[in-house]
Amino acid sequence: MEQPHALAEAGAGAGAGVEAIGDAYIIRPLELADLSKGFCDLLAQLSPSPPLSEEAFRARFVELAALGADHLILVAVDAATGRLAAAGAVLVERKFIRRCGLVGHLEDVVVDAAARGRGLGERLVHRLVEHASGRGCYKVILNCTTELKGFYTKCGFVEKNVQMGLYF
Amino acid sequence: MEQPHALAEAGAGAGAGVEAIGDAYIIRPLELADLSKGFCDLLAQLSPSPPLSEEAFRARFVELAALGADHLILVAVDAATGRLAAAGAVLVERKFIRRCGLVGHLEDVVVDAAARGRGLGERLVHRLVEHASGRGCYKVILNCTTELKGFYTKCGFVEKNVQMGLYF
Repeated sequence: MEQPHALAEAGAGAGAGVEAIGDAYIIRPLELADLSKGFCDLLAQLSPSPPLSEEAFRARFVELAALGADHLILVAVDAATGRLAAAGAVLVERKFIRRCGLVGHLEDVVVDAAARGRGLGERLVHRLVEHASGRGCYKVILNCTTELKGFYTKCGFVEKNVQMGLYF
Repeated sequence: MEQPHALAEAGAGAGAGVEAIGDAYIIRPLELADLSKGFCDLLAQLSPSPPLSEEAFRARFVELAALGADHLILVAVDAATGRLAAAGAVLVERKFIRRCGLVGHLEDVVVDAAARGRGLGERLVHRLVEHASGRGCYKVILNCTTELKGFYTKCGFVEKNVQMGLYF
């Protein structure tokens, strides 16, 4: 079987996965070649993300690609430099409640510090939400700090519950 | 390939997936036969969950079984009646951050109204957390109402962030 080079996006026909924001950024699914375009540096602005070896990156990429439309990572590429300026993921959870309903989990959304304030994060989140909607999810949920509530409110989210965590 | 009859639990050897609480409840992975033991009635105490047909239940069950140790639903069976008294799930998310870290998402934990106040929920959550830990997760997270913060604090969780949602 041919190795996947880009994660699948629901309903993406030829070229449909790519969206240009003005001429500055291209939003598209994560590709194997993105490791060398600053993917780990970008994630490190969100959470500790030491550089990954090509092998480790490829192995996780292939695992995620096997989930098909149940997992999508989108990135925004700076058209001028070819470097990644933003990334975000949506994971589709299959439930039994709500007639075997599907829920989208928005995860690991990050915009490069130098690219903030231009609406890039909002566009990226919109695309991830569209993917979850296209996949048939009845809702999309996310966890964020109180500082980011305003941003996600602009993206159409409303505050719901409390997130709790247990750390090993 | 033989159809799976029970969802996989990490590190479960012969009989290791079953835990008795006193003599009253048995905690074990969800089985195909559980549809007729009140599974949907139980879930309906958590969220709208109309009865599922055997076909719909089986189809979702098989999809989840295909995720192997990345998805586990545990149920507590009332030893006296054979009916389900509690259920809960953990979904393992594969990330790139934190050296391709794994995160457990605790979902759809519910204890039958008649079985509350006996520590059953805490035991069930403990087992789900153990599964995530055994699978290599660096944390387990969940979303709950403010009313349930005390319960999850007893289970070892700490309050972290805000959950937001977007409903289609």
